[in-house]
Amino acid sequence: MTEEQLRGLLDEVKSGTLDVPAALERVRHLPFEDLGFAKVDHHRALRHGMPEVVFGLGKAPEHVVAIAGKLLEKADNVLITRVSRQTAELVTNELPGGEYFPLSGAIRFWRNRVVTGKGKIGVVCAGTSDIPVAEEAQITAEVMGNEVFSIHDVGVAGIHRLLNNSQKLLEARVLVVCAGMEGALPSAVGGMVGCPVIAVPTSVGYGASFHGLAALLGMLNSCASNVTVVNIDNGFGAAYVASLINRI
Amino acid sequence: MTEEQLRGLLDEVKSGTLDVPAALERVRHLPFEDLGFAKVDHHRALRHGMPEVVFGLGKAPEHVVAIAGKLLEKADNVLITRVSRQTAELVTNELPGGEYFPLSGAIRFWRNRVVTGKGKIGVVCAGTSDIPVAEEAQITAEVMGNEVFSIHDVGVAGIHRLLNNSQKLLEARVLVVCAGMEGALPSAVGGMVGCPVIAVPTSVGYGASFHGLAALLGMLNSCASNVTVVNIDNGFGAAYVASLINRI
Amino acid sequence: MTEEQLRGLLDEVKSGTLDVPAALERVRHLPFEDLGFAKVDHHRALRHGMPEVVFGLGKAPEHVVAIAGKLLEKADNVLITRVSRQTAELVTNELPGGEYFPLSGAIRFWRNRVVTGKGKIGVVCAGTSDIPVAEEAQITAEVMGNEVFSIHDVGVAGIHRLLNNSQKLLEARVLVVCAGMEGALPSAVGGMVGCPVIAVPTSVGYGASFHGLAALLGMLNSCASNVTVVNIDNGFGAAYVASLINRI
Amino acid sequence: MTEEQLRGLLDEVKSGTLDVPAALERVRHLPFEDLGFAKVDHHRALRHGMPEVVFGLGKAPEHVVAIAGKLLEKADNVLITRVSRQTAELVTNELPGGEYFPLSGAIRFWRNRVVTGKGKIGVVCAGTSDIPVAEEAQITAEVMGNEVFSIHDVGVAGIHRLLNNSQKLLEARVLVVCAGMEGALPSAVGGMVGCPVIAVPTSVGYGASFHGLAALLGMLNSCASNVTVVNIDNGFGAAYVASLINRI
Amino acid sequence: MTEEQLRGLLDEVKSGTLDVPAALERVRHLPFEDLGFAKVDHHRALRHGMPEVVFGLGKAPEHVVAIAGKLLEKADNVLITRVSRQTAELVTNELPGGEYFPLSGAIRFWRNRVVTGKGKIGVVCAGTSDIPVAEEAQITAEVMGNEVFSIHDVGVAGIHRLLNNSQKLLEARVLVVCAGMEGALPSAVGGMVGCPVIAVPTSVGYGASFHGLAALLGMLNSCASNVTVVNIDNGFGAAYVASLINRI
Amino acid sequence: MTEEQLRGLLDEVKSGTLDVPAALERVRHLPFEDLGFAKVDHHRALRHGMPEVVFGLGKAPEHVVAIAGKLLEKADNVLITRVSRQTAELVTNELPGGEYFPLSGAIRFWRNRVVTGKGKIGVVCAGTSDIPVAEEAQITAEVMGNEVFSIHDVGVAGIHRLLNNSQKLLEARVLVVCAGMEGALPSAVGGMVGCPVIAVPTSVGYGASFHGLAALLGMLNSCASNVTVVNIDNGFGAAYVASLINRI
Amino acid sequence: MTEEQLRGLLDEVKSGTLDVPAALERVRHLPFEDLGFAKVDHHRALRHGMPEVVFGLGKAPEHVVAIAGKLLEKADNVLITRVSRQTAELVTNELPGGEYFPLSGAIRFWRNRVVTGKGKIGVVCAGTSDIPVAEEAQITAEVMGNEVFSIHDVGVAGIHRLLNNSQKLLEARVLVVCAGMEGALPSAVGGMVGCPVIAVPTSVGYGASFHGLAALLGMLNSCASNVTVVNIDNGFGAAYVASLINRI
Amino acid sequence: MTEEQLRGLLDEVKSGTLDVPAALERVRHLPFEDLGFAKVDHHRALRHGMPEVVFGLGKAPEHVVAIAGKLLEKADNVLITRVSRQTAELVTNELPGGEYFPLSGAIRFWRNRVVTGKGKIGVVCAGTSDIPVAEEAQITAEVMGNEVFSIHDVGVAGIHRLLNNSQKLLEARVLVVCAGMEGALPSAVGGMVGCPVIAVPTSVGYGASFHGLAALLGMLNSCASNVTVVNIDNGFGAAYVASLINRI
Repeated sequence: MTEEQLRGLLDEVKSGTLDVPAALERVRHLPFEDLGFAKVDHHRALRHGMPEVVFGLGKAPEHVVAIAGKLLEKADNVLITRVSRQTAELVTNELPGGEYFPLSGAIRFWRNRVVTGKGKIGVVCAGTSDIPVAEEAQITAEVMGNEVFSIHDVGVAGIHRLLNNSQKLLEARVLVVCAGMEGALPSAVGGMVGCPVIAVPTSVGYGASFHGLAALLGMLNSCASNVTVVNIDNGFGAAYVASLINRI
Repeated sequence: MTEEQLRGLLDEVKSGTLDVPAALERVRHLPFEDLGFAKVDHHRALRHGMPEVVFGLGKAPEHVVAIAGKLLEKADNVLITRVSRQTAELVTNELPGGEYFPLSGAIRFWRNRVVTGKGKIGVVCAGTSDIPVAEEAQITAEVMGNEVFSIHDVGVAGIHRLLNNSQKLLEARVLVVCAGMEGALPSAVGGMVGCPVIAVPTSVGYGASFHGLAALLGMLNSCASNVTVVNIDNGFGAAYVASLINRI
Repeated sequence: MTEEQLRGLLDEVKSGTLDVPAALERVRHLPFEDLGFAKVDHHRALRHGMPEVVFGLGKAPEHVVAIAGKLLEKADNVLITRVSRQTAELVTNELPGGEYFPLSGAIRFWRNRVVTGKGKIGVVCAGTSDIPVAEEAQITAEVMGNEVFSIHDVGVAGIHRLLNNSQKLLEARVLVVCAGMEGALPSAVGGMVGCPVIAVPTSVGYGASFHGLAALLGMLNSCASNVTVVNIDNGFGAAYVASLINRI
Repeated sequence: MTEEQLRGLLDEVKSGTLDVPAALERVRHLPFEDLGFAKVDHHRALRHGMPEVVFGLGKAPEHVVAIAGKLLEKADNVLITRVSRQTAELVTNELPGGEYFPLSGAIRFWRNRVVTGKGKIGVVCAGTSDIPVAEEAQITAEVMGNEVFSIHDVGVAGIHRLLNNSQKLLEARVLVVCAGMEGALPSAVGGMVGCPVIAVPTSVGYGASFHGLAALLGMLNSCASNVTVVNIDNGFGAAYVASLINRI
Repeated sequence: MTEEQLRGLLDEVKSGTLDVPAALERVRHLPFEDLGFAKVDHHRALRHGMPEVVFGLGKAPEHVVAIAGKLLEKADNVLITRVSRQTAELVTNELPGGEYFPLSGAIRFWRNRVVTGKGKIGVVCAGTSDIPVAEEAQITAEVMGNEVFSIHDVGVAGIHRLLNNSQKLLEARVLVVCAGMEGALPSAVGGMVGCPVIAVPTSVGYGASFHGLAALLGMLNSCASNVTVVNIDNGFGAAYVASLINRI
Repeated sequence: MTEEQLRGLLDEVKSGTLDVPAALERVRHLPFEDLGFAKVDHHRALRHGMPEVVFGLGKAPEHVVAIAGKLLEKADNVLITRVSRQTAELVTNELPGGEYFPLSGAIRFWRNRVVTGKGKIGVVCAGTSDIPVAEEAQITAEVMGNEVFSIHDVGVAGIHRLLNNSQKLLEARVLVVCAGMEGALPSAVGGMVGCPVIAVPTSVGYGASFHGLAALLGMLNSCASNVTVVNIDNGFGAAYVASLINRI
Repeated sequence: MTEEQLRGLLDEVKSGTLDVPAALERVRHLPFEDLGFAKVDHHRALRHGMPEVVFGLGKAPEHVVAIAGKLLEKADNVLITRVSRQTAELVTNELPGGEYFPLSGAIRFWRNRVVTGKGKIGVVCAGTSDIPVAEEAQITAEVMGNEVFSIHDVGVAGIHRLLNNSQKLLEARVLVVCAGMEGALPSAVGGMVGCPVIAVPTSVGYGASFHGLAALLGMLNSCASNVTVVNIDNGFGAAYVASLINRI
Repeated sequence: MTEEQLRGLLDEVKSGTLDVPAALERVRHLPFEDLGFAKVDHHRALRHGMPEVVFGLGKAPEHVVAIAGKLLEKADNVLITRVSRQTAELVTNELPGGEYFPLSGAIRFWRNRVVTGKGKIGVVCAGTSDIPVAEEAQITAEVMGNEVFSIHDVGVAGIHRLLNNSQKLLEARVLVVCAGMEGALPSAVGGMVGCPVIAVPTSVGYGASFHGLAALLGMLNSCASNVTVVNIDNGFGAAYVASLINRI
């Protein structure tokens, strides 16, 4: 029930064409969302310039094309994550304007490039193998209207490389830090900056990394107080939250 | 080496009382932190009105008194977390002005109550057993200079209680959401608001909760994109990051 | 907003003392639960003859007394689970009519003994060490208005003892089966009956039982199709669902 | 030894053609099942209108055809679960009347469509990726003689979508709720209804979902008391128990 | 129904005092165990000279006394495992003839010392901390009628100590090998002998021993083909199986 | 150094052709195994009629052929486990007399069929999916000189099928019991017989079976005292130990 | 800022062309690494004769060729680990002088064969399936300038094979010991020698080896005090540390 | 059999007082260790100035006194680890010269303070809570004859504190690095130095540290190649290996 429908109902009551018991009955059964004005408005406000997102993993290529095509009818920016090369080829052939990023498996339609974030988001990663996850974060943060800078390959075992980037790190309003293996980078970065750090454990590693578990546990136990954590390989989620923070 | 010391060294070089090779040698070996002006400044800036924090778990009562006493000499606000009742009694007897919170085991010296956070931080918890963790978050957020509101006992199994608080939730600039057992509350809250949600799994539960593991995994897999996670029972850490976000 | 309040609002609109925009505004902001008639009714219906339940674990004795005292003012039956002997003494001293079950740590106020369940609920356990959990299930099922029978010590390693009870098992409309260690009993029972079996893994065991994990995994992998599972040691939950089924 | 055989034996004893020691010897060695009349009768009663089920995973295509063919000789309804497309093609080519459901990998022969369940079974799932498991549940519940309705894509992060379906949910006599990732949906649904909820964790997710473990643990720790749990992805088992409940 | 009862029934049928339908009815409902002659006989045979066993862990002292007292009325040998010193004192005070072993917490009543095992059982342990488990095994094997020898403190990190005992090891008909920490001893012993080795992981260790998990996994993965494994710290179970083998 | 060599050395010392220091030096450096008479003899004795075994998993087809060919030169019986169909074809083409068992992936050369085991070994499995593991056990036990019988598909959820085989089970001197999913069969079988039961967890199952972990834990926690356990899917190892027991 | 740059700055201060505040400002912002002389020198020293290493796992063949080609321009020795046969063919075709080791998947360019290690490194492995990991260790240790010997197939279940190599083991200055399954070999070896033992758990095994976890835990719990551990299958890392020790 | 005994035997053979078969028999049964000259010598050499060690955890106070008293009769230095204050008081009262370290629970008798290590061992820890483990390492390294320096509280979240100690770190010949929580310090240290780093995960932390598991996994996955790992809290073991390396 939209606001208009509710207004109509009240008008009917006022005019006497609907009696109170009947009105009561109709209100009693109206679905919740029709009253959720604040929420809807909020969402509308929130979505200005923000992308629609399709999580591509496990979806059939033709389905991805169909969903993305529909979203592109009303959204400027659409982000598709984790698709295979085969799906990417179908999407970019069928839908003009998409850019495919093979490392992270993302496709981005970025037609509205207005910057809405108030500061810079930094995306940092520990090793070259973490770049796919960092790329997903960077692409997401950009398409959500942020100025983004990236720093790659600054793992804690080469601490001077990280320190050489300390000025750069201090420029960020919020940082996304991706690391696999022991996942120590967010702690080191967290200690060097005063802004929030969103840590992304990656599944990079072998043996006792247990597909990212080691990095995940490490980040959850970070001795740096400004670190929060998202799921393994979830570059998208980290960038999403970073964007929310950067809009504040 | 302080800035003053470096200035002195350069003055000596300028005046000729120190030759260049000797100066080079001294600079070469100066410790890193002495040059870390930006960092120090940054930290100083960061700490305006922020508390010094003592992690009390496992520290002897007399040590907690000693550390806290020292910090109170130069800091307005000091927060001590996770102490026993016995330690709390000693601390509050020895050091005037401390308030003990027995649920969370925190002691707070809150002498500077200037509000520096720009919006409100909401602290939400699922059940009454989660209140100790929520209390730690609330105390922390307050002593870090934020306006804080709390909503207790709004677990997802009574979704109407949560919905009754939807207006309240929308007032927050950032939310800390604490839940044990299945840890589902951050997902539900995350879907109702547009701001960042920092999820705190609690060790509340038994059996297959595995001391908070179930809640932790649930939160890491949240289908709400605005959720990040901290360690089990880490109300302090969640509030710390929330405070950073609220200062931006 | 109660139904009465909403009726009043509509009456005001009808009579013209409240204009439509003002009415709209009031409806727009009314909290959700005020419209949740069905739910409230449903709950009220559901609760006929059902106990109020207090989960006692970790609650201070005086709090348990206070909560239970309040509930007893309006509820006939109150069940308190998992309290220490110390709490039990306080409760039974302060609140007349409570019966303490030291094995399971439950206290039961059972003033309305009307049977509302349509058939019998059987509570079965594998070994004598599982009896505390089985007792919690039995007490719960009884106070929820069911006829209950119990069969103890019929673990699969003495299969003839179980078979001797096959006629009894077939009398049940729904069964609660508790077992620790390897947790095999629900599978064996499930194969002997046609009714739903609710399996309760118990934390009975040592070493590789990992506090009930072995039994839990065993039950989740049951090759009997009529088995569902609840949390480790959750005799209450199993009996609660059994009661729901027995009321259908 | 059938009842007839035992009667014959007793007749022989009575008539004197068999002496007591010889009769004793024959009874002593008779296999158990021959005396298990009640059980056999019970099973026969239970199976009226119920399908025979073939668990297809890991079986060779030709074996599935052979087993299903044999069952179809005497059973109206046969359900085959978890077969590959290749197996499905062979089965549907060889055995007329089978319908293949590629999402869940099920094949259903549904020749007797009598409804024996007394109420409706609702099958609910959190996200579109959970549909294969929900489909398995729906197909199973239908072929077991139930009226079934489905609600898809009502995860807790969009709580208003779930609430919009609250009337529908209340129509069910028993609910099957499927969710992956954090597995929070059964708790939310459980709090909205008074009927039993059978929760099915799905393996949907990545990283710290650990192939459904996160959802499984979440559901086992549900704070809603009317929730029981089956194995990961076990849509069949959930629907089987739901059908048992719906027949009561 | 005992054999005598069944014989009586057949006699009645033969004599005509019981007609066939009535006899049929009585047989139909007789409980299973009454027909379980083989089993009962088997058990009786099995129990010659074998102890009755009481698993003491978690049982109240007075219960242990009561159970043991009852068993001692008809059994020569009674073994009580895992009791506290307090329970042990009560038992040995109340029931004459019991010997308490404080390391393993066992009490043994050993009144029939006939040796029924055909060879020797060797009980081997890796370190002095494993002796409590080894002691439980030794006591059990002895009271079950076996000649037992023990070898202590022959862990693989001092392989010469083990090799010095190689002649002794070869004397055993079956070996029980207890080890904590890395649990490597059964593999080494298994390679030195040709008899069956029953491996008992112990909970000895700290940190990554995870309360015996490391030893358990090690033993399950033994590269010696003659090794089987029992639960962590289950010296009793290992000795029980060793005794069965030694009687063959 | 063989016994002959040592005798020769002593003869040389005695005759004076070797002086004592030189003899001492030679003895000091002799490798250990040369003195390991007992062990070698023991092994020789042990191997009478026993097969040589090749663990095929992960070995290249041509390597398997080479190793098996060499072993067949001096051994009557050779067992190759866990080879692919491709390897099996190569082996059986190159080496006459081999029989391939595709379910378990074993190849058996069984040229000496003398029975050396003193009783029967029973191989029991819970479901048809466990047959590959049971087959590996059966083939192994046979080629090691035992009379073997098999009982398939007697899982605990159809307990009457198991009970129908109780006479058969009692014929065995030792039992190998294979089960996946909840792994409950060894407990049930263990309670029905008095002989040792070697339990083999299988990786059969899905979801919370965690590739056999559920069955493994269940078996380790068996409440039947006559059960020991081997690694997941290790039919070979179980049969090997069963053969050792059956030779005693 | 290199040392030369800093010297120039000081020269400018001395000569008066740069005043002290400006100099201070420039020093204040100089990046850290410019002062890291010691570290750079240290690294240079460390790298004399040491190989450059490319971790090949997951890198595209053409990238491996490009990286290795670049490194070969300035380094004598280059080691590439964990490449597929396809990558190996491309590399060895494009870059002359590389030797491919198919078991371990390593490619080695070994143009400077100067031995810099002061003693011998021994590489020991338990079974033939562990050879790939041992090979990676051996190749690494050799290309890092060490004399290396290897001992294969000396698992603890055939302890005499290990003992036959005791003289050889004592020749090593440091040992790398690789083992899968129960991972017991490092403990046995550690007890036989006085030098440091670096243990490498391998992923060899099945079932409860959990991809090397059993071996890893076993080695971490070694009762031999001279054992340290690296990641599962990390032959490279073990040899790297062994080389560091051997250079001391 | 000592070398002297063997020489005597050969002398008897030479002189004819012992015939060859009798000599053969005696040699055949001599225990292994009697021939283990090299090993014994090696051990003797190894033990010059090294302490005897008593692992005190779980030992009764009087046993610790007895063992330590016996060792002190022939050893200059004795180290007792992990004893309670109560045990420590008994030991230091009974045995003069012992020094008790309450943080780590160690007692040290250090009567021979000759330094045999060739360089310095550095013991580094991340936080003040890790000091007990670091202290155990330091005490061990000292009593084993090494010059030791310690650096405390240099966790990666305050990287400048670590960098300030870089010169100090470079002085070490081998480093022991202790860290709990995320366990990141060994990676950072490992990247700053060229010597071997022995990482000790500590059980410091809470929640998802899982008693040191997070730190352990982190260290095993270290991206610094010069890091090896010991068990959680095993400061002794790390120092023991460091001492071996420092003697080379």
